[in-house]
Amino acid sequence: MANDILLRGVRPFGKDQTDMLIRDGRIAQIAPNLPEQLGIKEEHCGGAILLPGLVEAHTHLDKSLWGMGWREHQAGPSLRDKIDNERRLRREWDIDPHRQSMRQALLSLGHGSTAIRSHVDVDTKVGLAGIEGVARTREELAGLVDIEIVAFPQSGLMSRPGTLELLDKALRGAADVVGGLDPCGIDADPKGQLDAIFELADRHGKPLDIHLHEPGELGAFSMEMILERTHAMGMQGKVTISHAFCLGMPDRDRARALIEELAESQVHIATVATPSRPVPLVEDLRAAGVTLCAGSDGIRDTWGPYGNADMLERAMLLGLRNNLRADRDVEHALWCCSHGGARVMGLKDYGLDAGCRADLVLVDAETVTHAVVAHPPRKLVLKEGRVVARGGLSLREAP
Amino acid sequence: MANDILLRGVRPFGKDQTDMLIRDGRIAQIAPNLPEQLGIKEEHCGGAILLPGLVEAHTHLDKSLWGMGWREHQAGPSLRDKIDNERRLRREWDIDPHRQSMRQALLSLGHGSTAIRSHVDVDTKVGLAGIEGVARTREELAGLVDIEIVAFPQSGLMSRPGTLELLDKALRGAADVVGGLDPCGIDADPKGQLDAIFELADRHGKPLDIHLHEPGELGAFSMEMILERTHAMGMQGKVTISHAFCLGMPDRDRARALIEELAESQVHIATVATPSRPVPLVEDLRAAGVTLCAGSDGIRDTWGPYGNADMLERAMLLGLRNNLRADRDVEHALWCCSHGGARVMGLKDYGLDAGCRADLVLVDAETVTHAVVAHPPRKLVLKEGRVVARGGLSLREAP
Repeated sequence: MANDILLRGVRPFGKDQTDMLIRDGRIAQIAPNLPEQLGIKEEHCGGAILLPGLVEAHTHLDKSLWGMGWREHQAGPSLRDKIDNERRLRREWDIDPHRQSMRQALLSLGHGSTAIRSHVDVDTKVGLAGIEGVARTREELAGLVDIEIVAFPQSGLMSRPGTLELLDKALRGAADVVGGLDPCGIDADPKGQLDAIFELADRHGKPLDIHLHEPGELGAFSMEMILERTHAMGMQGKVTISHAFCLGMPDRDRARALIEELAESQVHIATVATPSRPVPLVEDLRAAGVTLCAGSDGIRDTWGPYGNADMLERAMLLGLRNNLRADRDVEHALWCCSHGGARVMGLKDYGLDAGCRADLVLVDAETVTHAVVAHPPRKLVLKEGRVVARGGLSLREAP
Repeated sequence: MANDILLRGVRPFGKDQTDMLIRDGRIAQIAPNLPEQLGIKEEHCGGAILLPGLVEAHTHLDKSLWGMGWREHQAGPSLRDKIDNERRLRREWDIDPHRQSMRQALLSLGHGSTAIRSHVDVDTKVGLAGIEGVARTREELAGLVDIEIVAFPQSGLMSRPGTLELLDKALRGAADVVGGLDPCGIDADPKGQLDAIFELADRHGKPLDIHLHEPGELGAFSMEMILERTHAMGMQGKVTISHAFCLGMPDRDRARALIEELAESQVHIATVATPSRPVPLVEDLRAAGVTLCAGSDGIRDTWGPYGNADMLERAMLLGLRNNLRADRDVEHALWCCSHGGARVMGLKDYGLDAGCRADLVLVDAETVTHAVVAHPPRKLVLKEGRVVARGGLSLREAP
């Protein structure tokens, strides 16, 4: 079977060296010195650290410029500048959502991400072309990487009539999650936008993931409106707030009170660990029991030149941003980039236990913290027991 | 001659492709299609980006744990915890300053740093052993990497009698620069410490580099005392303040007023671009004409697990911390990690012009910004025209 393999000499999450037998794409047995299995190939892993497949929980697969040759950055400083600049260049530069999402998803896979939640632009110009492009990528990469699509009204929802109908259509089609965006800052109609997207989510039985860049008290105001609706509509556990910069507000007590409410309503947070902005702090979220996941955000796109889709490097950035130094704390940063994302995406049978799906990453490192801070090229990546990447590169070539 | 070489097909700081002839360790000629030179070897560079040797302007060569096997992080959260923990482990773990500085300096060289300013601990326990160890490394690596030694009273100066005499002795010996540290936060005697180190600097005719972690108004208070002494003693251009977290204070106008004073006294700033702390902003310093240099700070030491001595990655972190997106701004971040450091260290004949010392780095990248964000392994590093590293690794092996 293509999905059977015996891994010799792995250290699950840095623990003692053992063997791991994978059958039918699942972890069947974990024990040292397992006997040879008839007809099952073996892989000698030399004591590499074994991690569950990393989870890229916040990105934009449809708009990376990866592989398109270097383009000078053009956008002005404001959020609105970046949105308008992107809408213009999307066409001018032929940023094809299918081609570009294939490139980025395979780049991710090479770095060990076996699941990706991608926000995909929906607006009255691009229509559903972005969703369709990424959906095609999802089909082509089925069995290699799990892709979840958020229908994302990047250019505004209430302020751009026609977008709501497009979101509805996307959700009848390939989209898995309802997106939202700065209900005050972009739409200047928080009640309108939030009522609309919660209604959509309810009607389609889908979760929500809302970009919230709004800082300080403005963001807190929007967040409280999201919490209110989450509670009223019984959407506990199904709502994620991305960025949530307002939780980095100087008044830590106020932020912590909001975090308590997030915990109560089981609202998740997705972060990029942006070094230049106030961000939700790992420590506060963890103490309150709020699930934190992480992502690369846009990768080398019209918004900025950074990013490489490496979620081990993202764990390092999360550690640096939060001043995490103790090994157990750095390990938690990696938890956010793996288990945290899996929980937010609702991935079933995720992890390193017997019975789990064999989505696995091997890294040559001394400890888990060492893997995070050094983030060397991934030795091996398996998707449901099948080897899909080696030496940092996906075996499937990108277009 | 070992220091003669003809580089074919380089792009100096991303400009048009050209050839570069190096004679006697200096850039002799820059022009396309240079004729073959009798007896001079050629290197075909395939259009790689050519940068001046990177400058690691703030690090601690004497205390990295690089190559010593993974050690779990032990320090408590405060600055004092970290200082005390380090003093304990230095002996327990046999963190040998010579061996460890050799390892880190050669790691740096592999990443293209041809000059390093290193703070080296001086205290009543370690005495001058750190200085001596790093000085030995400097001798052994002469012609490979320039090392400048700051005599650094890590454990306090006024609060630890005997340290001042040790600093004095260090400056009569191998130390090039007088160090200082949080005159309020650590010594609780700003007048005492600052008078003492300025007097030392004056007497030995050496520059100063003062660690200043003190935040907000406390740091501003110490900074003003430093400015006053710089002016009074005619030390303009010879004083660097490292970290200067106080310049990241929320009151931007107050910070900018301090920055104007720094500019007037030609006081330089060294930064690590710490993501978890308020930091001096590139934009404000640049606008005022204050020279900013950058460094890795401690690399995988008892203070924390991060760091890899890659100054291209540091330029990326500087860009991320300052939200630099335009190519010209990211290029300026790299300027800080090269020219900025050279200016602070007073390196002579630094740069890519004819006549400059041929300390050079080649990177396979499309543009300078691409080199920063992707920071691929350095293709080639030259020190005064001699090839000293290839493929990210120093040719000289570390102990």
